[in-house]
Formats: sequence, C-alpha cells, structure tokens
Amino acid sequence: MEANFITFEGGEGAGKTTVLQKVSDRLKENGYDVLLTREPGGIRIAEEIRQVILNPEHKSMDGRTEALLYAAARRQHLVEKVIPALAKKQVVLCDRFIDSSLAYQGYARGLGIDQIYEVNQFAIDTCMPSLTLWLDIDPEEGLNRIAADQGREQNRLDLEDLDFHKKVHKGYQILAERFDNRIKKIDASLSPDEVSELAFQKIILHIDQ
Amino acid sequence: MEANFITFEGGEGAGKTTVLQKVSDRLKENGYDVLLTREPGGIRIAEEIRQVILNPEHKSMDGRTEALLYAAARRQHLVEKVIPALAKKQVVLCDRFIDSSLAYQGYARGLGIDQIYEVNQFAIDTCMPSLTLWLDIDPEEGLNRIAADQGREQNRLDLEDLDFHKKVHKGYQILAERFDNRIKKIDASLSPDEVSELAFQKIILHIDQ
Repeated sequence: MEANFITFEGGEGAGKTTVLQKVSDRLKENGYDVLLTREPGGIRIAEEIRQVILNPEHKSMDGRTEALLYAAARRQHLVEKVIPALAKKQVVLCDRFIDSSLAYQGYARGLGIDQIYEVNQFAIDTCMPSLTLWLDIDPEEGLNRIAADQGREQNRLDLEDLDFHKKVHKGYQILAERFDNRIKKIDASLSPDEVSELAFQKIILHIDQ
Repeated sequence: MEANFITFEGGEGAGKTTVLQKVSDRLKENGYDVLLTREPGGIRIAEEIRQVILNPEHKSMDGRTEALLYAAARRQHLVEKVIPALAKKQVVLCDRFIDSSLAYQGYARGLGIDQIYEVNQFAIDTCMPSLTLWLDIDPEEGLNRIAADQGREQNRLDLEDLDFHKKVHKGYQILAERFDNRIKKIDASLSPDEVSELAFQKIILHIDQ
C-alpha cells in the first residue's frame, strides 16, 4: 500500500470532479506536491485501450473482455504515471480506481466482486491506494444533479437507468464495509466546499510527509 | 472442460501450422465438422486489441498490461468464435491458447505461471480445452528450421535469442507435468506426416462424437 496514493470514488453526480480540483488546490496551497489524475490520463497505450472499450461499434464486447481491458489500461496508467509520481514523493489523487471496477462491473453488472478483484490485483500488483474517499450520494439525487447540470455532457453511464445506479451504490456500500480500513465515506449531499474540506482534513491526517 | 475443444502448443519451429492443417483435413475426410482457428481469428475486437499489443511504437508497454491484453483478446475470440462452434458440435482446433501465455509470459518472461493462470482463468471462465497437444521440439532445432525456411516471414519472437526459446521449452515441460491429464506431448522432431498422424490418432480417441 502506498501512503501517498489516494483515490476518489462515487456514483454519477457525486461531484468528484469539482471536489478533486478543490482538494488538489488546497493541498498545493499548503505546500504539497500533488498529481491529480484519472485513467487513462494521457498515457498513450492506456488511451488506445480506452478507445477499443468505448468504440460504439463494439456492441459484441463481452463483459469479461471489457473488464480485462480496463485492468490493462489501469496497469499502464499506473506504471507510466502514478508510480513515477509516488517515487518523486508526490501526493497522487486519482479520480476512480479499482473500486469503480468492483462496484460497476463486479457488483452492478454481476461479474462478481471477487473475480474482478483478482484481475485487478494482477494489474495493480503492489501499488494499492492506502486511502479511498467514497463520495456517497443518494443515486436519485445524483442523477437529478446531472440532469440539472446543463454544461455537462452526458456519457453512456449517465444514461443507464436508476436501477443500475442503485446497484452501483449498493456495490460501494459493500466495498466500504469489506475494506473499512482503506475506504472512508464522505456525505456528498453536502456542498462542494464542505465535501472538499472534509476530504482535505482526512487526507492531511493520512499522508506521510 | 469442453470435450471437442483441442489446442495445439509448441515453441517456434515446432511445425504447428503445417500439422494443424493436415490434422484438420484428415478429420474432415473422416466426416468431422472442424473449425481451425487461432487468436485473434478475424474477430474484430480481438484484432484491434492485437494491434495495440503489436504496435512497435509501444515500447513502454508493461508485461502485465500485455498479459491482460492477450487475455482480453482471448476472451473475445472465445465468445465470438469458439463457443458458438462448440455449440454447433464442431471440433475446434486452436493454434495456441492459455499454455502459450503460461509458457511465454508466465515462465519465460518471469511474470509467474500462477499469476498468468489466474488472469486467464477469468478470461476463459468454463471454456477450457480438454486436450492440448504439445509439439515438442528441441529449441535449437526449432530455430534452425525457421532459419532454413526461406518462405517464412520471421516474427518478433523468432528473433529472440536461443536462451529465451530454451526457457519457453522449459515452461512447456513444467506445464505438461502440472496438467498431465490435459497436455499430451508429441515428438515434433518426426516428419510432419508422422506428427500429424500421431495427433490425429490422439484426437479421434478423445473427442466426443
């Protein structure tokens, strides 16, 4: 486990993007050297893998193929971007990581949390985050927020039905219980400033520098 | 395990391509409905994944990323081509499968047989071959055969040094001992006709129709 590797998780509309930016700014103001990233993160091989995953013509793509491709993109982003940053003692904030695969594919799509975990263990090897902040929002409220946000381009997952988003939420609940040492829940129904403050406080108590 | 799913394995220069064609022809002459295939096998998603793997510009590709991509291509080829053929009661002959990943990546490249096996188990799920014919050739003789074959285009693996090919051979030996119920060795220093005859005899004793 990497003390300075922190991941953010949550369903659609939880406000991750806004909160991550605020937390990153706040850490920098306090003198921390921060890398804010998300997969595939501009890593060429990972970007190409994502293009294969997201190609709308690939309607025949099997769920396990998709899970293996996500794990492959994760590995390459980790090797080329996260691990070098950690080696330079940066604090790495990553928008979604293994728990997204576990909640979305393992639980909500029914491929099995344990099985998706095994594949991702192989991808991650020893570079696990030591702290994961779950921005917990009621699925219905999350979807309402997205619908109200005119500036936001809706993606494929935003358009899944409420039932699916409820399953994702349940998946995160299961993960937060199973990995209670690593995953800390934050009430994301609060304002972005409040959520960011809570996240910032948890991070500075946690990181090793 | 699928009774009619048969895979062929072996190092470079073992003569797999020639033998597979002869065995396929022989089975067809004897009234069997045969699918002869190899990954990515014309399956579009699998072909695109292979392009990512084989792109010579991807010099930074990590070994685990590569292993996950091979597993992803394997999954899609299986789902779109092998499983439908087995459902139609065809005899499926596949040129290389899980054991190639185990011998080349798991053993020869040092990623670990057990770890590569786990990732591939996820990809394969329940569709394992019930018979694997290992065309066993001395690595030095295999490389000499390739060098002598002017018509053959050398690929990246042909050009690896003898040491690597010896490791691959050792990997196959380990696998043949570990999975002795499934993997049957054939002496590939014999002529292609003799090897094909031995392979044909093993297959007709084995398959379920």
